[in-house]
Amino acid sequence: MNTSMNYSKAEDWYIEEEKFDSSWLGKCEAIMCLGNGYLGLRSATEEEYLNEKRGYFVAGTFNKFDDREVTELPNIADIINLQMIINGCCFTLDKGTIKKYSRKLNLRTGELSRCIVWISPKGDELAIEFYRVVSMADLHLIAQKVIITPINSNISLKIISGINGRITNSGSQHLSDGDKRLYEQKYMQLVQTTGESQIDFVHNTSLSFMIDNETCELESRIIIERRKIYMEYEMDVPQGIPLVIQKISNVYTSREPDNADIGLKKLQEKSLSLLKNAVAHGYDRIAYDSATEWGKKVWDKTPIKITAEDEFDQLSIRFAQYHLAIMVPSHDNRMSIGAKGLSGEGYKGHTFWDTDIFVLPYFIFTDPQLAKQLEQYRYLSLNGARAKALSNGFSGAQFPWESAWLDDGEVTPVWGAADIITGEPTKIWSGFIEQHITSDVSYGIWQYYKVTDDQKFMDQYGYEVIFDTANFWVSRLEFSEEDGLYHINNVVGPDEYKEHADDNAYTNYMAYWNIKKAMEYYQYLKEERTSIFNKLLNSLDLDASYEMWVDRADKIYLPVPREEDLVIPQDKYYLTYKEIDLTNYKSQTQVDTIFLDYNIEQINHIQVSKQADIMMLFLCLEDMFSYEVKKANWDYYEPRTLHDSSLSLSSHCILANDLGDYDKAYDLFRKAAGIDLGTNMKSSDSGIHAASIGGIWQCIVYGFGGVRMINGKLRIEPKLPKTWSDLEFPIIWHGQKLIIKINKNRLQIENITKEAEVEVTIYGKSYHIDDRLEVDLPEGCQL
Amino acid sequence: MNTSMNYSKAEDWYIEEEKFDSSWLGKCEAIMCLGNGYLGLRSATEEEYLNEKRGYFVAGTFNKFDDREVTELPNIADIINLQMIINGCCFTLDKGTIKKYSRKLNLRTGELSRCIVWISPKGDELAIEFYRVVSMADLHLIAQKVIITPINSNISLKIISGINGRITNSGSQHLSDGDKRLYEQKYMQLVQTTGESQIDFVHNTSLSFMIDNETCELESRIIIERRKIYMEYEMDVPQGIPLVIQKISNVYTSREPDNADIGLKKLQEKSLSLLKNAVAHGYDRIAYDSATEWGKKVWDKTPIKITAEDEFDQLSIRFAQYHLAIMVPSHDNRMSIGAKGLSGEGYKGHTFWDTDIFVLPYFIFTDPQLAKQLEQYRYLSLNGARAKALSNGFSGAQFPWESAWLDDGEVTPVWGAADIITGEPTKIWSGFIEQHITSDVSYGIWQYYKVTDDQKFMDQYGYEVIFDTANFWVSRLEFSEEDGLYHINNVVGPDEYKEHADDNAYTNYMAYWNIKKAMEYYQYLKEERTSIFNKLLNSLDLDASYEMWVDRADKIYLPVPREEDLVIPQDKYYLTYKEIDLTNYKSQTQVDTIFLDYNIEQINHIQVSKQADIMMLFLCLEDMFSYEVKKANWDYYEPRTLHDSSLSLSSHCILANDLGDYDKAYDLFRKAAGIDLGTNMKSSDSGIHAASIGGIWQCIVYGFGGVRMINGKLRIEPKLPKTWSDLEFPIIWHGQKLIIKINKNRLQIENITKEAEVEVTIYGKSYHIDDRLEVDLPEGCQL
Repeated sequence: MNTSMNYSKAEDWYIEEEKFDSSWLGKCEAIMCLGNGYLGLRSATEEEYLNEKRGYFVAGTFNKFDDREVTELPNIADIINLQMIINGCCFTLDKGTIKKYSRKLNLRTGELSRCIVWISPKGDELAIEFYRVVSMADLHLIAQKVIITPINSNISLKIISGINGRITNSGSQHLSDGDKRLYEQKYMQLVQTTGESQIDFVHNTSLSFMIDNETCELESRIIIERRKIYMEYEMDVPQGIPLVIQKISNVYTSREPDNADIGLKKLQEKSLSLLKNAVAHGYDRIAYDSATEWGKKVWDKTPIKITAEDEFDQLSIRFAQYHLAIMVPSHDNRMSIGAKGLSGEGYKGHTFWDTDIFVLPYFIFTDPQLAKQLEQYRYLSLNGARAKALSNGFSGAQFPWESAWLDDGEVTPVWGAADIITGEPTKIWSGFIEQHITSDVSYGIWQYYKVTDDQKFMDQYGYEVIFDTANFWVSRLEFSEEDGLYHINNVVGPDEYKEHADDNAYTNYMAYWNIKKAMEYYQYLKEERTSIFNKLLNSLDLDASYEMWVDRADKIYLPVPREEDLVIPQDKYYLTYKEIDLTNYKSQTQVDTIFLDYNIEQINHIQVSKQADIMMLFLCLEDMFSYEVKKANWDYYEPRTLHDSSLSLSSHCILANDLGDYDKAYDLFRKAAGIDLGTNMKSSDSGIHAASIGGIWQCIVYGFGGVRMINGKLRIEPKLPKTWSDLEFPIIWHGQKLIIKINKNRLQIENITKEAEVEVTIYGKSYHIDDRLEVDLPEGCQL
Repeated sequence: MNTSMNYSKAEDWYIEEEKFDSSWLGKCEAIMCLGNGYLGLRSATEEEYLNEKRGYFVAGTFNKFDDREVTELPNIADIINLQMIINGCCFTLDKGTIKKYSRKLNLRTGELSRCIVWISPKGDELAIEFYRVVSMADLHLIAQKVIITPINSNISLKIISGINGRITNSGSQHLSDGDKRLYEQKYMQLVQTTGESQIDFVHNTSLSFMIDNETCELESRIIIERRKIYMEYEMDVPQGIPLVIQKISNVYTSREPDNADIGLKKLQEKSLSLLKNAVAHGYDRIAYDSATEWGKKVWDKTPIKITAEDEFDQLSIRFAQYHLAIMVPSHDNRMSIGAKGLSGEGYKGHTFWDTDIFVLPYFIFTDPQLAKQLEQYRYLSLNGARAKALSNGFSGAQFPWESAWLDDGEVTPVWGAADIITGEPTKIWSGFIEQHITSDVSYGIWQYYKVTDDQKFMDQYGYEVIFDTANFWVSRLEFSEEDGLYHINNVVGPDEYKEHADDNAYTNYMAYWNIKKAMEYYQYLKEERTSIFNKLLNSLDLDASYEMWVDRADKIYLPVPREEDLVIPQDKYYLTYKEIDLTNYKSQTQVDTIFLDYNIEQINHIQVSKQADIMMLFLCLEDMFSYEVKKANWDYYEPRTLHDSSLSLSSHCILANDLGDYDKAYDLFRKAAGIDLGTNMKSSDSGIHAASIGGIWQCIVYGFGGVRMINGKLRIEPKLPKTWSDLEFPIIWHGQKLIIKINKNRLQIENITKEAEVEVTIYGKSYHIDDRLEVDLPEGCQL
């Protein structure tokens, strides 16, 4: 464990690493990742280390290495490398002496910096500063600046830098060794093309140098090797004089609609010419433009203020908003958010229910346009979902557990890590039977609709998805002669430690909800929106569908609370499984430690849950269950839940708050924020946890802020943690931007759009806000 | 430059590295490479370093990454890794303190060892010994032993070791992520399959531990990740007690005829069961069996003794014989020797004329059975050669410049390094127009035939190759109305600094020789071997061919010495090109430095040669040219030759000796041996230089030993370097093994086979040896 990570600076816009240890590179590479939704760039260092994991991804550029693998986001050529050789000594923090060290990510500007004073093994002392941005203003642009100042002597400096196309996805190479060119002795270009999907990438980069504020031309040499193009520069830098190196790079691909048909040659020319413009602007201007865009897009638009004893809490929401901004492909509705954003190879860039249930609410409530695009992605994936249903013998649309390019359908890998007992790889069942994703997608669309009131979206896209997912569910149901009811057997519910569950409560209830919602909208359209109704009537054979829905919806088996203790069985057999002492596995700072003692086959038959399962049901359909039922189930299941998934802590935090266990709620919030920002130095190696990061916002706004859309209505019932004095955040409800301010005993809501009145329920009372509302919090909710 | 390489130990069987520097890893990885002709294993260390280049190849398992690349030998999964974590500190020589260090390759036994005393950054002092062999007795087997002894404290030791399938060929991944299995909590298995050629590899490995001479079972944990299977072991090792770790591994592929049809599952079972046997034997037994086989196969069979002032000379021939033994695929005649053997990715495992002209003579004279297999490879490649001729509009068989699997035909890459002027990649013309390879193949066959007298080989294979290559040449010739002669325009000769040469002397003479040889054998077969003649008559349309040969052979333009200075123009325009001062490029210890100032287009038009060109002609067809002509051309061309190819120094050494410049000859021999064994720490990074290594033997036996096959006759005219007192080596001539001993003034030849009389010419006099011959050397040849 490394304690050098520092999040508690007075200026709470920074994540800082105060001590370098090359054993723990993955952490900062991921949590300090740069990006803009188009591209993601792990914050690997300019110099190389043995255990680094360079990562650079462009959203939506999926490729399949071979038929044994599933499609994934290719890890493209490294362009940030920059090797410095000082009097023959290669700069590396693994050798020599580090006199001063700080690495920081400025969340406000998106700038990464490192300030180092280093003494080389030969005794040369140098001050080296590194700066880097991925532009939020020009999605294709990466800019780097390095300032190197010899402190105790003149130095002879050699710089080697360029583009390295040898990077792989942990050994799988998605990209060809394409054209490598040097233009005008200055601009390097490397082309890569994916093997299966045939997407072209054009990388351009150029270095320039300033000494004593004067641009200078260095002696240089081009090196072209297999998959590599590099320039080598040499110069003498006098003692005390800073040399400023700028490296400006860009990437364009044929995936972008603008580039899809222009051909590779034109793409090479276009991207090169755009690089030349960027080089003319230089690092400082690029960084300034990017920071300005960050303000417009995130910080000025959705400022969230937490006044708390520990500034970590304020930082954690900024950290979350930063990552939510860099993970979302706001430029293209044909792609969605990966479970690791664009910050690592983990989960292959695939989209899970994490997006619909954990991440989407942030965008629904703060950036409806972006939320709409994410829902359009699901609509555009309908063909793949229909194909998946068909291939499984079902009707309608069955959304893939893991989703990549639109028509790809299911892309979940089939094999996972080793079974500790048999030594064989374990089968990943999610792609086959983790079926709740289909109602999660519908639920996300419904939530978007209800919060934004975007009727046009529903007319164009939304109803079709809700109808056709209902069609899947009625075809999926299994009739039992025994009880005359419909069951859903052999599924994985949210809790992935139960692999072949029958009648998983979450799955059954959500399927029921999905069909009921379809029935409701069928009636509504038929009665009030004839033209839309007629359009869908034909394409989806709506009348026949409706008959099936009506016939089956109320015959779905919905597990009810046991009489004796109000516990709802998570699935048919869960409550019959043996119980073991989970202390060791729950107290660990590591996840998955139970696998050191049991294999999945055994865990399947123990009363232990990986993550929120019933709890998710209470959150999604909260008005269907009473406080008593929720409390009883919390008391039963939470002690049996290891939180081995990053989808667990934030949901539990919200529920703990709902149920009145405020200290536990705050504790869970801190733990949730700690999944990436915490001291476990290995937890983020393969990328940040998008769902957990969406969950941080949910803890604050859904949890402590008490904001919820319940059955189409806005409800706000705040309850701040003891250590917070103020919380302020905006939400957008039906197109009206509301600024919500909460302090120890009052709630203030200001409608700054003022175009329409907003209805809100606060502790059971309904209010209408057209301008501003202030109410006292009930006593138990005051601090 | 690193001067820690030590070759001059009293015991001249070792190459030793006395100082470790992680900047120069490639050198020892290549020159200390282990292997057995079936597999080649670069001597990367157990622990990992940033600039290492792990390499592990199985002969003949070619695969093409994609259609932009040519086929190459895949760099397969790393199996020698073994990470040790001592009280939390990862063992690496880049940190901590090295108190003692020695890495040695024992050429006699093929065992690699490292003996280190190391103090970890935490102050733990350890003695660590590493031993490794690739078995010469069981071609599939690799054995490692590590002995770790804590010197100043008890230690807690963690060992992580397994199979890593993330290795690529400089970024290109040829292999799938296949099955990973752990059997009996002990045996790890990883399967890989090549993408295009669909060759299966099965890797097995197992670790075992002994402490205080007792086998012990350690606590272990299996780790399966993408392309990786590992075990992690933990134990406490008391101060002063050595822990012995053994790691035994094997590899089998579906390329082996035995395994081609049994299916992957059977191959997995078979290889696993063979590994279990090997594990039962243990490291010491495996190493002993391998060393025994080394004796039988190489050292006892072909002992070469040099008594010289500098033991480097003895070591250099042992080094050469060692590498010749590990590069030759003696198990399978469907594969040949790559330009880097199996010691690196360089030249992609492809076979060039290097094999036929530079390497083959060693095997022809010392192991005719192996030489025959190499010639059979050329015969089996005839279809590819015919296809190449046909696709270029020619008749007969045109051998590919670079050759891989039998029917692949031409596999030379089309693009090379960057042009320093235009920044564009340069086109590699060799595959298109470096055509002399076709007569080189015929020449190799003829040489094999004349030295071994293997008539059966000629009947079955040899004549067909010589006839069909002659057919290529007659179709390739270009008639000139101007002089009524046939020319060969637009070729690359041996000298690759002249890319579009007309009438390259070597090419024209060797084509002429090839056709003339075909004519001679046509006559011979027609007159004396009717059945063979009739067989080939039909298949090759011999009569029509013969007519063409007769019509054209004597009308081929053969450049003759200029009257004024006896210089033969290397090609039509060479002597007209401008001359520049080459001092800087000739005195460099680096090759290719001329490219820092000129691009290939410019070098094409300068009187500068990369390598032996006319000199190769004098060596191959030495009885066609007088001493005066040779001397005149040496004096003209050698100063214009940069020796930027490893195919140059040894040929020049032999000629210098022939021409009487003995000091120069010895100097060139040392330089030739220094190509791999010298102090240039980067020269062998991508693999050893097979041609240069064949050349070391040629310098000694052809050069100083004066052995030559001239027009079918054995000639021996020794001339030892001043610093040598004795030279002793065996050759096999017409099936008779001759032991040749040369000292300051006498030559002794003993026929130890004694089955037939051998005729030999020594300084113009002919002798017949049935037992033993001793003659005084002429005065000028005595020391």
